[in-house]
Amino acid sequence: MTRFKLTIEYDGGPYVGWQRQDNGPSVQGCLEAALLRLTGRDIAVYGAGRTDAGVHALGQVAHIDLDDARFDGRKLRQAVNHHLKPAPIAVLDAVAVNADFHARFSAIERAYLYVIVSRRAPLAIDRGHAWHVRQPLDVAVMDEAAQRLVGFHDFSSFRAVQCQAKSPCKTLDQVTVTADGEEIRITATARSFLHHQVRNIVGTLKMVGEGKWTADDVSRALAARDRRAAGPTAPADGLYLVSVHYPPVTGASPANT
Amino acid sequence: MTRFKLTIEYDGGPYVGWQRQDNGPSVQGCLEAALLRLTGRDIAVYGAGRTDAGVHALGQVAHIDLDDARFDGRKLRQAVNHHLKPAPIAVLDAVAVNADFHARFSAIERAYLYVIVSRRAPLAIDRGHAWHVRQPLDVAVMDEAAQRLVGFHDFSSFRAVQCQAKSPCKTLDQVTVTADGEEIRITATARSFLHHQVRNIVGTLKMVGEGKWTADDVSRALAARDRRAAGPTAPADGLYLVSVHYPPVTGASPANT
Repeated sequence: MTRFKLTIEYDGGPYVGWQRQDNGPSVQGCLEAALLRLTGRDIAVYGAGRTDAGVHALGQVAHIDLDDARFDGRKLRQAVNHHLKPAPIAVLDAVAVNADFHARFSAIERAYLYVIVSRRAPLAIDRGHAWHVRQPLDVAVMDEAAQRLVGFHDFSSFRAVQCQAKSPCKTLDQVTVTADGEEIRITATARSFLHHQVRNIVGTLKMVGEGKWTADDVSRALAARDRRAAGPTAPADGLYLVSVHYPPVTGASPANT
Repeated sequence: MTRFKLTIEYDGGPYVGWQRQDNGPSVQGCLEAALLRLTGRDIAVYGAGRTDAGVHALGQVAHIDLDDARFDGRKLRQAVNHHLKPAPIAVLDAVAVNADFHARFSAIERAYLYVIVSRRAPLAIDRGHAWHVRQPLDVAVMDEAAQRLVGFHDFSSFRAVQCQAKSPCKTLDQVTVTADGEEIRITATARSFLHHQVRNIVGTLKMVGEGKWTADDVSRALAARDRRAAGPTAPADGLYLVSVHYPPVTGASPANT
């Protein structure tokens, strides 16, 4: 039995989200179906982050256990990608790891990117891949306000009502807001996030960018510890799980890397 | 009667190309249909560049004549975009211009971008929006070889057999090849291009990047003035018409700009 770490890119548009659900196709379900076609066996895929419907990934991480000596990482990547066609899901990398590696529980940092396109005209090329905001946004004040959220806080105001995390307290390591022409990019990194936390932060920062809220209003929303005190949830279209980081491996990893 | 200059973005994926054709939906046809719904009249749309099936535009330019005092540029943009829904076509800008402005014949420079993604794994997010090349490419030698094509030349070797231009001689003003991670961007500017010229240049430069051809081979292919002497045609997916430039306007433009 070999445990493999998979790094996965997907367009979340056609999916009900990462997690298998009864109401439609999921990314996890597509990967498991591809593995069933490949191996003839039911193989469970464990993801690092349960992205919501419509949320994309540039570098989701998952692990699987495979009892098949035919496969090293390279062959596994190629074979799974072959069986994934024509789904907009691609295994970027597959590597054998120690048996105690867990995509979700071993993760020490997750990085998200949120893309806003701020312009009058509708989106043609980037439709489904960014949030189209018609109002001009002041990126400098958005970035300034975002810094109010960095650190260890009770993020109840930015947490979906249906969030299942035991505690609303998280450490937000970093948030940045930058612009490149009409494209505004918001990055956020933390060990883990609450449900909708990034999208609720983005929806709040957009109000700041429009001039409806100040950085002090963001601090007050955070202090309120009440979902109704913060801004609306930004749409899924603009959100990307960029990467998941793990501690450096100590000790030898299996030979068939 | 007012002439309007429209700047247009579109995803070329669903279309047979810019130009109206019998075999499927075209970008020009969609714009004319939107204008018919808006005004109740047949209004011809004249484009600067007849992009092929699957080719995208970030800044195509077209002109129309409108005999309707209700519309200034801003209202026209909004109304056309409303009637274009749900097509992945967006009017970015509409501005009244002098009656002698012609989107195609007044243009003095066209800029194209070609996007290659060079990696092993298939494309999920960028599918249809870039050329997926599995081989590693040497971008520095591609850029060096590209410079052999700059200037006034007989481009017969890079011209589609079905090209209708009177002369195969064109001045290529500039070509650059740059990389950002796995994404390789090739830009090309000229007053005008032959049919498939950019895609044939890209197909040839890819052979250079793979190490199959040298810059001298590119010079020889150019000198042969024979389509069979150059590389294959790169796919439409990676090509974007970025912008079209016109001489500065002399004299007053109409009041309802």
